[in-house]
Amino acid sequence: MTSAATRVDALALDAADDLAPFLDEFEPLPTEACGRELVYLDGNSLGRPPRRAAERLAEIVRGEWGTSLIRSWDPADPTPGRGRWLELPQRVGDRLAPVVGARPGEVVVHDSTTVNLYQLVHAAIALRPERRVIAIDPEDFPTDRYVVDGIAAATGHTVRHGFDRLDDVAVAVRSLVDYRTAALTDLGAETARVHAAGALVLWDLSHAAGAVEVDLHGADVQLAVGCSYKYLNGGPGAPAWSYVATELQPTLPQPIWGWFAQRDQFAMGPTFTPRDDIGRVLLGTPAVLALAVAEVGIGLTADAGPAHVAAKGRRLTSLALELCDAWGLPTSTPRDPERRGAHVAVLHPDARRLVATLAAEHGVVADHREPDVIRLGLSPLTTRFVDVWDGLDAVRRLVSGS
Amino acid sequence: MTSAATRVDALALDAADDLAPFLDEFEPLPTEACGRELVYLDGNSLGRPPRRAAERLAEIVRGEWGTSLIRSWDPADPTPGRGRWLELPQRVGDRLAPVVGARPGEVVVHDSTTVNLYQLVHAAIALRPERRVIAIDPEDFPTDRYVVDGIAAATGHTVRHGFDRLDDVAVAVRSLVDYRTAALTDLGAETARVHAAGALVLWDLSHAAGAVEVDLHGADVQLAVGCSYKYLNGGPGAPAWSYVATELQPTLPQPIWGWFAQRDQFAMGPTFTPRDDIGRVLLGTPAVLALAVAEVGIGLTADAGPAHVAAKGRRLTSLALELCDAWGLPTSTPRDPERRGAHVAVLHPDARRLVATLAAEHGVVADHREPDVIRLGLSPLTTRFVDVWDGLDAVRRLVSGS
Repeated sequence: MTSAATRVDALALDAADDLAPFLDEFEPLPTEACGRELVYLDGNSLGRPPRRAAERLAEIVRGEWGTSLIRSWDPADPTPGRGRWLELPQRVGDRLAPVVGARPGEVVVHDSTTVNLYQLVHAAIALRPERRVIAIDPEDFPTDRYVVDGIAAATGHTVRHGFDRLDDVAVAVRSLVDYRTAALTDLGAETARVHAAGALVLWDLSHAAGAVEVDLHGADVQLAVGCSYKYLNGGPGAPAWSYVATELQPTLPQPIWGWFAQRDQFAMGPTFTPRDDIGRVLLGTPAVLALAVAEVGIGLTADAGPAHVAAKGRRLTSLALELCDAWGLPTSTPRDPERRGAHVAVLHPDARRLVATLAAEHGVVADHREPDVIRLGLSPLTTRFVDVWDGLDAVRRLVSGS
Repeated sequence: MTSAATRVDALALDAADDLAPFLDEFEPLPTEACGRELVYLDGNSLGRPPRRAAERLAEIVRGEWGTSLIRSWDPADPTPGRGRWLELPQRVGDRLAPVVGARPGEVVVHDSTTVNLYQLVHAAIALRPERRVIAIDPEDFPTDRYVVDGIAAATGHTVRHGFDRLDDVAVAVRSLVDYRTAALTDLGAETARVHAAGALVLWDLSHAAGAVEVDLHGADVQLAVGCSYKYLNGGPGAPAWSYVATELQPTLPQPIWGWFAQRDQFAMGPTFTPRDDIGRVLLGTPAVLALAVAEVGIGLTADAGPAHVAAKGRRLTSLALELCDAWGLPTSTPRDPERRGAHVAVLHPDARRLVATLAAEHGVVADHREPDVIRLGLSPLTTRFVDVWDGLDAVRRLVSGS
């Protein structure tokens, strides 16, 4: 064991944290049965509500939906208070673009990660018709694996577990940050390696956006998806997003031909002629209320600056790993701060029970992942260093039985 | 011309309307530039906001999301104020079930009409693998046609326009109420005819649910979808719904294998083993905020009673057609009240311009559909008889140039 940072050290880190003011942009945490404020270390599963969220929803319900009604859809209506909702998926996408290193017009916020993955895997295999293999990590998040298995079952593609062999791969489907260990893949190097083999790669950034720096353009990424309800604080079941590099947009083949992708949508013509911009991946009528809340949450990360957010994420996880080492808590999270996301996996055979007890008796909300992971999410905009200390202190006391 | 109902007659109908108290359940309408309250005849495109909507959203944002955070998902958590969000798609589906004549456990509210159509068309063709034709009305709503065209392009099925020949049809995709004319198909007779030919039928009830009586069970319907943002007042871009008859659920093949359809979802196991209930058609993480508002809107129609709602719809459209006849306004909407939905199509070669002028100068919001339709939506819970009179009076004055 090394000597541990003290709680006073953690408080000093908070006092010096230039992102600390962003905490005021979120609803306060509740007081738990134990009499203390909740320690919330699960912002990587569900981010906290921005203070503006309820107010923005009331504005939309009464001010846009209630006052302008159907006219709120019209993107050409200059009347103040009109929502121009038809633009929302792209507008929120443009707000998100700098957070993942995309250009304006390359990101659109819509539907769910599952649906968006489904669309872009289909698009990718249509772009590599001569190749019959889809590669995926067998340890990847379930919906990614299930979606790929479903597509392979329908199209006759072979699913290969792992990315060692790529010469016959149509598309590699990869999570940038592992949802259990937090291991961060090298986006640029792996994208280059896949492209060099003639394959496409579709990145899932659900556990990365708002947690680590992502430079989709710098890494020459062509296809990506992600959710916005984790580090982006977009709300429970917030719409996910799709990224398609500009040059791919005009000809991207997509399987679900919805009317929101139609070029002259309200002509309602006889044949589907999809748009040649990022709107091409849209499907049905966008979820306006959910998009408006996602816009608020995503906006906070954009305003804080993705580089600052990622830097704080590294400092939070560094403190957590330092405490794990000092207190003898085993972890599977990488030691190199450049090679990990913003959560930390503490390993314990009784993880499920410990996580339940942490919440019920210690007022610490973390997450359990099979088989042995206590997952502590350190969401940069809402987690204080003292939360990391208090949370791990509770884990330590529970594990040691003190 | 016949003698027309007067405005006083319309007010008398409102005074006798037992659904009139439901108007108080909705946000008030705005006062327009002309100084009068807006006449809103577009509840068939976007229903009005229930008064409970903003309040319910604030409860969820601060009370559930803000206070219980991730714990709000847990369906087993008995703590007051926990949202049990995992149950929401089915819970709201059960609220909707009686509105369309479904049984509990046969409807789930999720995703968009486009995505749900895509899933169930795929399911249907997988259930009739020996048949290679998908039948659809060439005049159907665009997203239905585009989705069918996209699936046919991917699978090699043939798209047939019309339903005369069915012996080689895998699935007939049909809207119950025509989005332009309001013509209402005979659900029982047409379902029986399709089934007798060995085909399946997938009904789109977007323009029917909350407007006319629908008895999915009585008509032996197996597959249906619909939206909830029109007559059901579920909010802009509210989640849509899927209906699958109980007996089809355990084996329904579906194309998008998402983790919310997985039997033991949080085991996150290696293979997709879908649930055998209506949850089988779920995909990604449900949109909690949007679902909560949809629950409020759908609940109002359920509480009012679908038969009462439909009866008022028939009376509203009867008044509208009586005025059309008296005032010489041509219409394509059927005269038989049992053969139409709750909107009325007034035909005019200058429909687009007239609809714009109606809104700008007369404070009447209606809808234009190509090429010549002025569409007046008479949403039973929110439209008064005097609104019908005032709206058509404005159309009459505009058309006659007075």
